[in-house]
Amino acid sequence: MGSTIMAGDGMAGTTAVIGLGSMGHGMAQSLLRAGFAVAGYDPAPGVAESLAAEGGRAAASPADAARDAAVVVAVVVNADQTEAVLFGPDGCADAMAPDAVFVSCATMAPDRARSLAARLEASGRHYLDAPMSGGAARAAEGSLTMLASGSAAAFARAEPALAAMTGTLYRLGDTAGQGAAFKMVNQLLAGVHIAAACEAMAFAKREGLDLGRVFDVITRSAGNSWMFENRVPHILEGDYAPKSAVEIFVKDLGIVVDMARASRFPVPVAGAALQMFLMTAAAGMGRDDDASVARLYGRIAGLDLPGQD
Amino acid sequence: MGSTIMAGDGMAGTTAVIGLGSMGHGMAQSLLRAGFAVAGYDPAPGVAESLAAEGGRAAASPADAARDAAVVVAVVVNADQTEAVLFGPDGCADAMAPDAVFVSCATMAPDRARSLAARLEASGRHYLDAPMSGGAARAAEGSLTMLASGSAAAFARAEPALAAMTGTLYRLGDTAGQGAAFKMVNQLLAGVHIAAACEAMAFAKREGLDLGRVFDVITRSAGNSWMFENRVPHILEGDYAPKSAVEIFVKDLGIVVDMARASRFPVPVAGAALQMFLMTAAAGMGRDDDASVARLYGRIAGLDLPGQD
Repeated sequence: MGSTIMAGDGMAGTTAVIGLGSMGHGMAQSLLRAGFAVAGYDPAPGVAESLAAEGGRAAASPADAARDAAVVVAVVVNADQTEAVLFGPDGCADAMAPDAVFVSCATMAPDRARSLAARLEASGRHYLDAPMSGGAARAAEGSLTMLASGSAAAFARAEPALAAMTGTLYRLGDTAGQGAAFKMVNQLLAGVHIAAACEAMAFAKREGLDLGRVFDVITRSAGNSWMFENRVPHILEGDYAPKSAVEIFVKDLGIVVDMARASRFPVPVAGAALQMFLMTAAAGMGRDDDASVARLYGRIAGLDLPGQD
Repeated sequence: MGSTIMAGDGMAGTTAVIGLGSMGHGMAQSLLRAGFAVAGYDPAPGVAESLAAEGGRAAASPADAARDAAVVVAVVVNADQTEAVLFGPDGCADAMAPDAVFVSCATMAPDRARSLAARLEASGRHYLDAPMSGGAARAAEGSLTMLASGSAAAFARAEPALAAMTGTLYRLGDTAGQGAAFKMVNQLLAGVHIAAACEAMAFAKREGLDLGRVFDVITRSAGNSWMFENRVPHILEGDYAPKSAVEIFVKDLGIVVDMARASRFPVPVAGAALQMFLMTAAAGMGRDDDASVARLYGRIAGLDLPGQD
């Protein structure tokens, strides 16, 4: 375990959190609660300052955030943003202590994770590939699931900060890319299940069924899924304010089909689901909640779903 | 409640069970345990006799089974078999008591359920549309889920027998066809989830992941589904002995796409899943377990899955 990191006794080390959206902000709060000094950075004006009001330090750039940190956690959307955080203008890679660890939480293709890790590790620093599962509520509670892979040294250095942020930490391999691959398998399933839930609910409406009753029956039957339980209430309430946007699965199923094509592997079910997210984005709902796929079916077929436009 | 039916006091009425496969036989056992006299029929030689050894009566035809019965339960595969049981040679419709109820458990299109009900009800007899959820173990325990619809009279007459067979009885409407429609929404989801589980596990193998670990991670993550939990162990064990055969979802997703096409409603995700079941059947695995869709991906891509041929 890194000598500069001591969690749980009020003298924990400094952790940088780069990207203070709903996930990153919650993770920073969990770290503060566990006694870590937290330096936060977000490109949006005023966001880092609100973390400062909660006891953190508002940093002016990724490099500034990383300066004193033993652990740098990047909570951004994709591989390109992660690369910019590390190696872009005012990036954190060169500012990190020589033995610090970078914890990458974005969902990305395993190849991208491997290449970012190799570039950072060439300088002696450590890289943990650590995509997450769980939403903003679990981020704020410190009970996220992380699907992590990396060297023993990367795990050892990151461990106290990870303990503050996660409820379940999977150790999925000793090199970057493995965590990413597990996450993409999860995203294949999650994306298909959302699209299927939306297709099934719209189909049920077309058949004249009471949708609340359908939810009740399906959640107690073999057709249930985690996503059906989680997303169908948005359809029943006609509430398409984004908890997770359509564009997330345009991206994530896009990565799945790219990976599969690169390795000459067919994924026709994921491919069909991706087309539904793309259609929903094409119809102008890309930034709305991903249950909007049901609203698209509703528009196409003239259904009177709750909140239908 | 029908005057001829008294359950739970050792003087329960006679129930006929037509179709004594793994589901029907278990349901007949549950009825015997609850004190019903049971007359059983199955076209396969010797099957009804094995029910007789357990205390039932071996009937020689659907008509013979139905002769003394207040409730006739048909546990066959599809609408055509149900129609033959009712109206075919030695069918039970004319043999049923004038106020008896026919309980139809096969999964079928709502239109077929409506038309069978109308034909039987024209003679004054009652029809309950009652597709089921739950496998052979729950049939034998008397803890099936039934998605039922029909007239108040049909429910009242069937109720004591249903209580012996089910753990959960949904009352989904007052006409035949509604139970069937709910069941088809469930089958859309169940079929897509099986195909997605198989696609995801084969994709994970292609990516070099440890499949046991994938099962462990996914069942605790947002990508989980009832079918993933239930079917992926077959893939991990390479055990494709049929618990539920590929042909079942060729049929059930076939009904879904037929219903959807008839009402001019697109179901592209269910359509993609159906094609995978068809491909698996085309490759000679139609009678094998439906997790064989993973084995098809494995064959196509030359993967070394457990039990791969």
